[in-house]
Amino acid sequence: MVNPIEFFFDFSSPYSYIAAEKIDALAARHQRTVNWRPILIGAIFQKTNAVPLVHLPLKGDYSLRDFPRSARFHGLPFNMPAKFPLPTQSAARAYYWIAERDIHQAHAFARAVFQALFVADRDISDLAVVLEIAAQLGIDSDDLSQAVASPEIKERLKNETENAFAQGVFGAPFFIIDKEPFWGADRLPQVEHWLATGGF
Amino acid sequence: MVNPIEFFFDFSSPYSYIAAEKIDALAARHQRTVNWRPILIGAIFQKTNAVPLVHLPLKGDYSLRDFPRSARFHGLPFNMPAKFPLPTQSAARAYYWIAERDIHQAHAFARAVFQALFVADRDISDLAVVLEIAAQLGIDSDDLSQAVASPEIKERLKNETENAFAQGVFGAPFFIIDKEPFWGADRLPQVEHWLATGGF
Repeated sequence: MVNPIEFFFDFSSPYSYIAAEKIDALAARHQRTVNWRPILIGAIFQKTNAVPLVHLPLKGDYSLRDFPRSARFHGLPFNMPAKFPLPTQSAARAYYWIAERDIHQAHAFARAVFQALFVADRDISDLAVVLEIAAQLGIDSDDLSQAVASPEIKERLKNETENAFAQGVFGAPFFIIDKEPFWGADRLPQVEHWLATGGF
Repeated sequence: MVNPIEFFFDFSSPYSYIAAEKIDALAARHQRTVNWRPILIGAIFQKTNAVPLVHLPLKGDYSLRDFPRSARFHGLPFNMPAKFPLPTQSAARAYYWIAERDIHQAHAFARAVFQALFVADRDISDLAVVLEIAAQLGIDSDDLSQAVASPEIKERLKNETENAFAQGVFGAPFFIIDKEPFWGADRLPQVEHWLATGGF
């Protein structure tokens, strides 16, 4: 019995979008599944005194060039959102509620949220937008709307973020494979090599 | 007439060591030369309020795992230096003085300095160690010792660091190809793709 790849991400992270488009196929090539774990990276940044990439001197300007270039490098469409970074609570809570019911639908929902933000420039911090994305996958808007407002699902996202931090997650995307941590979409080649070789 | 690849690095940067082992051959595959530019990344970090990677919460611990793993991934030996990070003025000044006389010898010197630090765990902040590394390449220790103490070579390194900062360099390694910036050894695949395609 092999462990799934733990895949931590924030819906507001461009490099997480790239990773989300790649990780399931990569894992499948090595007979692994992926445990998708949306988190609130901002909550972790508060604990580590980190600052969103785009707000850093020089590095911020560079990242605005590197996001679309990295997407092109991976053959993915990308448009820089007008509102960025932005709150991702609603999308992340919705993910966990959907995942409890249908994990395949949840992955499809997560990819659709990323594409809404980073291709179609939709404001995914708006619950109405999240509900619309879910509705296109056949998910009832009233049920989902109630769920994301529930104390249980808020607690779930809080716990997921705290558990990620406890496991050393400090950025997004972040992968853990059999306790080995990998940070960043640019570690996907190492992730693949790790799976292919059983560790190197 | 094609431009050389501008390669900015600090001798105290493990990812710069990886890049230094790869960049000349990568460039040669695409009929480019490389302009090696050792800088003092600490001086740039002071301007941008950045902190050395290993001193950051969580990210520091992760980096100590990622340095040797990344070296293994690239097929390179690596031993974490006991003294790290450390001042690199002497090595960088020596580089520029050697480069004015023999650019091939300068590249060999730079690689030898990286290997001394990241394979043999020598203290390259010690001028005596730098002189010894150079002596093994046939460079006169008295001449080099005088040179690295000269106001001219100190000014040269200061100017190189300031010029790098003015061009947007905020980390190491950093590459500029025909004005396109690439940060990090993990951007080498994009550097190669950029050279192969003439930009993408």
